[in-house]
Amino acid sequence: MSMSIDVPESSNVAKGTAPLVAAGTRPPAAGGLRKGLAITDFILRLGAIAAALGAAVTMAAADETLPFFTQFFQFEASYDEMPTFQFFVITMAFVGGYLVLSLPFSVVTIIRPHALGVKLLLIILDTVFLTLATAAASAAAAIVYLAHNGNEDANWLAICNQFTDFCQETSGAVVSSFVTVVIMVLLIVMLAVALRKH
Amino acid sequence: MSMSIDVPESSNVAKGTAPLVAAGTRPPAAGGLRKGLAITDFILRLGAIAAALGAAVTMAAADETLPFFTQFFQFEASYDEMPTFQFFVITMAFVGGYLVLSLPFSVVTIIRPHALGVKLLLIILDTVFLTLATAAASAAAAIVYLAHNGNEDANWLAICNQFTDFCQETSGAVVSSFVTVVIMVLLIVMLAVALRKH
Repeated sequence: MSMSIDVPESSNVAKGTAPLVAAGTRPPAAGGLRKGLAITDFILRLGAIAAALGAAVTMAAADETLPFFTQFFQFEASYDEMPTFQFFVITMAFVGGYLVLSLPFSVVTIIRPHALGVKLLLIILDTVFLTLATAAASAAAAIVYLAHNGNEDANWLAICNQFTDFCQETSGAVVSSFVTVVIMVLLIVMLAVALRKH
Repeated sequence: MSMSIDVPESSNVAKGTAPLVAAGTRPPAAGGLRKGLAITDFILRLGAIAAALGAAVTMAAADETLPFFTQFFQFEASYDEMPTFQFFVITMAFVGGYLVLSLPFSVVTIIRPHALGVKLLLIILDTVFLTLATAAASAAAAIVYLAHNGNEDANWLAICNQFTDFCQETSGAVVSSFVTVVIMVLLIVMLAVALRKH
């Protein structure tokens, strides 16, 4: 009976990498690595939630009213005047909500390291929401860049000379959203490594 | 000898899903599914290459010279006046290049369905380049949207009234880049399913 347990383990490892491992027990490092990955996954998710919701709230709160009226600009700049920033707020809140809902599944992968189905579900949903978060972050980054630098050829003037605080807040939100993107890429890589370790 | 081949296969399946499969040969469906996934992966990569390089070339070729000079606009609109469009061209060419280089690895997964390391490598690199492609696509989409609609509050006028052809070409490039993004999401999902099937 012990033979029929030992043999698949070793042949499993040998098949994936190199025919070095002889018949024997699985090295204890594999189980520990999986557990470590699952716990890191949970902690990184907490960080991603903070970054995503922070980005959404910062952008939604960005609002500046100028004390004077100029020829070119209205009194007020706020996120809901820019469709791209509206998309940003909605999408980052959506991504933050998904990450909160994914926490229980992350806990399941800590408690039951062999739950492959849960990891597969997480990797697929993470990929979809990574795409959403990246889309929101870089679309907003393109607009923030334009607000800072303007574009001479299209005659779009830099509005950050006037709306200093508004530009700082939206830039902060964009940076925070890219933190979310980087963390989600790490999450997917770690889940793929964990899937491969089975 | 034949025993030592059969046992790992069945215990492999049983570990992943449910303790239903008794000792015996692996069901032929799993191998066929894996082969089908690998071949679909290769075909989808060809489509993604076409979409990515098509997007880069279309954007790089987008260039329009107006026959008249107005107060607000220069004579010419081309991608290299917009930093976002430059980023788009460079990134989509880069993603297309990666996808071309990934083709041999995709072939390896067809020939050797048990090559787990190659699939892991592909899923990690695909995730990174998916993020790059999404960033380029949505940043350009934000600028194209602005070129079409303008923004009253920032006093950015829609330039598509003048540069009709330029706007059509850049819009086409953005659509093509989002096709690349969708295909790459599918590639990652399929690779994750293939990893889980081991």
